[in-house]
Amino acid sequence: MNNLHEKPAQFELLNVCHDTEARRGTLHTRRGAIETPAFMPVGTLGTVKGMLPEQLKEIGAQIILGNTYHLYLRPGHERLARLGGLHRFMNWDRPILTDSGGFQVFSLGALRKINEEGVRFQSHLDGSKHILTPELSIAIQEALGADIMMVFDECIPHPATRAYVAESTARSSRWAARCKKARTDQSAALFGIVQGGMEEDLRRQSVEELLETGFDGYALGGLSVGESAEVMYQVMEWSLPLLPQDRPRYVMGVGTPENLVEAVARGADMFDCVMPTRNARNGVLFTSFGKLSIKQARFVEDETPIDSDCSCYVCRNYSRAYLRHLYQSNEILASVLNTTHNLYYYLHLMQDMRAALTAGTFKVFREKFYRKRIQAGEA
Amino acid sequence: MNNLHEKPAQFELLNVCHDTEARRGTLHTRRGAIETPAFMPVGTLGTVKGMLPEQLKEIGAQIILGNTYHLYLRPGHERLARLGGLHRFMNWDRPILTDSGGFQVFSLGALRKINEEGVRFQSHLDGSKHILTPELSIAIQEALGADIMMVFDECIPHPATRAYVAESTARSSRWAARCKKARTDQSAALFGIVQGGMEEDLRRQSVEELLETGFDGYALGGLSVGESAEVMYQVMEWSLPLLPQDRPRYVMGVGTPENLVEAVARGADMFDCVMPTRNARNGVLFTSFGKLSIKQARFVEDETPIDSDCSCYVCRNYSRAYLRHLYQSNEILASVLNTTHNLYYYLHLMQDMRAALTAGTFKVFREKFYRKRIQAGEA
Repeated sequence: MNNLHEKPAQFELLNVCHDTEARRGTLHTRRGAIETPAFMPVGTLGTVKGMLPEQLKEIGAQIILGNTYHLYLRPGHERLARLGGLHRFMNWDRPILTDSGGFQVFSLGALRKINEEGVRFQSHLDGSKHILTPELSIAIQEALGADIMMVFDECIPHPATRAYVAESTARSSRWAARCKKARTDQSAALFGIVQGGMEEDLRRQSVEELLETGFDGYALGGLSVGESAEVMYQVMEWSLPLLPQDRPRYVMGVGTPENLVEAVARGADMFDCVMPTRNARNGVLFTSFGKLSIKQARFVEDETPIDSDCSCYVCRNYSRAYLRHLYQSNEILASVLNTTHNLYYYLHLMQDMRAALTAGTFKVFREKFYRKRIQAGEA
Repeated sequence: MNNLHEKPAQFELLNVCHDTEARRGTLHTRRGAIETPAFMPVGTLGTVKGMLPEQLKEIGAQIILGNTYHLYLRPGHERLARLGGLHRFMNWDRPILTDSGGFQVFSLGALRKINEEGVRFQSHLDGSKHILTPELSIAIQEALGADIMMVFDECIPHPATRAYVAESTARSSRWAARCKKARTDQSAALFGIVQGGMEEDLRRQSVEELLETGFDGYALGGLSVGESAEVMYQVMEWSLPLLPQDRPRYVMGVGTPENLVEAVARGADMFDCVMPTRNARNGVLFTSFGKLSIKQARFVEDETPIDSDCSCYVCRNYSRAYLRHLYQSNEILASVLNTTHNLYYYLHLMQDMRAALTAGTFKVFREKFYRKRIQAGEA
């Protein structure tokens, strides 16, 4: 193993589970350590919607995610660089991981066109024309001051023909190599992204090509795109064992609490997803017994907290009746409190998994996790 | 003077200014003391929009205001009573003052009709028909658990004929007496409201009629309804000296920072206004040098805080560039941070006035307050 200071992202493997592929580790970055398995709240536009940085820290956020596409369009990466970078701009001093912009650009559909160089696209804000390349993606991420950067790749839609998946995956590998070459800041980590759709051999090929280039960590991309949970887990089982033990493994855009538990059991270390934050703003809350929609009339005089097993600030201080009232009244505090609870739930789910892995009781944890849901009729 | 425990709102006069009518006092309520002059943030629907109770306390909020009309319609006062009252519902343990619902009901225009009994109106939410009387207003305020209740009165529109002002003012006095009679909870304070439009003799008549009934405190109503600042100050000068020295004086719905300084100089003790909170959500910020609209393009790369003389959380941690970005991006945090700053500004303006009154330097404070604005070309 290398010295902690030699690499921009040094992964320390602390425990491995005897019953599953689950791992407990510490990822060291230039802005501090991240205990894994870890969940990264999504802060699209320089803010995790509705949360102050201090509140994020209080609920245990170790690292957050910023979106390259959105920050490139506004306020703009050059402007952000002049303002001292994203950390200073948003008052967040812990690590930030940025995506490459690929996911958003590809989801523009008719507004974008791919060739070997990169992707031409029109802004969803004002229709202005842009071209995003692997080199520009890295330049943006470096300007933002990301501690972990992601290679520019295509998140392949599902379903897709095998021919398209093969072509796209090969191109993403070439782009990944261009990203590594384009990097100028060696203190920021760069992660490769495994593509290959839902095809075992193409996933293997993607891993091999990325390993050839060599990255500080590896992600699984192209998941949570409409495939079943079984297919998602299958892809994890094909791909994760091929990745080096001494590098962090990040499953992008995943997922539900169940998905996180299953991904950890298959050897994943890092996650991001808009589910806890976006659902919160829509009044959908995560609990130990499943999901709960706070807008329902049955909560109108319910004095109990969202989840009596939860010890978050919201569950300690507010009733379902109050949260329903705030949601129905379209109050800002509805989003603030719901987001606080949901992110706490996600971050503490990861904390519980880390504790179980440290104690060697992950198998018990996983069984108990499902038992509560089954008892509540939710799983 | 009575013992602190004999009355639901005991006003202790601590200092009087030698140069103006300004007063420094303490208002003791069943849920704690309020240092005056005091500003009360408005929490219309059981939340000061965008602020957690802990955040309100941190910036110095001693008491907040709840709106009877809005809480009567949702979630409903009987429901709130079953849920343990407004304090418990919204997790706020300091005093709450509730208005009477009169102001909102009268502003419904064509949707309401007045007679001696009360006001028939249709809900702005669903058109359902209701009648609000002095007796119901008190019943609602008691159900909410208000520490300071307001009498049900008519906030007379401006301009209005002298005949209408006379008729309405006399009716409001009769309603005020009915409110006092309807009160069942003697531990909650009840304030009378001086009406009389912009007519000196009718203001005097209103004061005399209210004094005859006798209340724990007195408010000036019917201000900030479109009259000039000069007329507003004139009405204060007519009315405030007629009120007893040993009772708190509350100027309702006022106003700008300048209005507050001038009202304090004329002997007012308490204020509420949506200006700091509503303006915040529209990107308008209050500073020691006047107002500032954060949406302006000139702030796009401005690294300075809103007000370099302000020591609030927002000014200590965020740039104008970031606040402009949040506002332009329609982020929840824009409302949260702008509200935090504006309320801090208002609450600290009151704190500064209290300190000046204690030190006997209110005249100097007032001159300095205007000097900064004049230098900035804002006053």
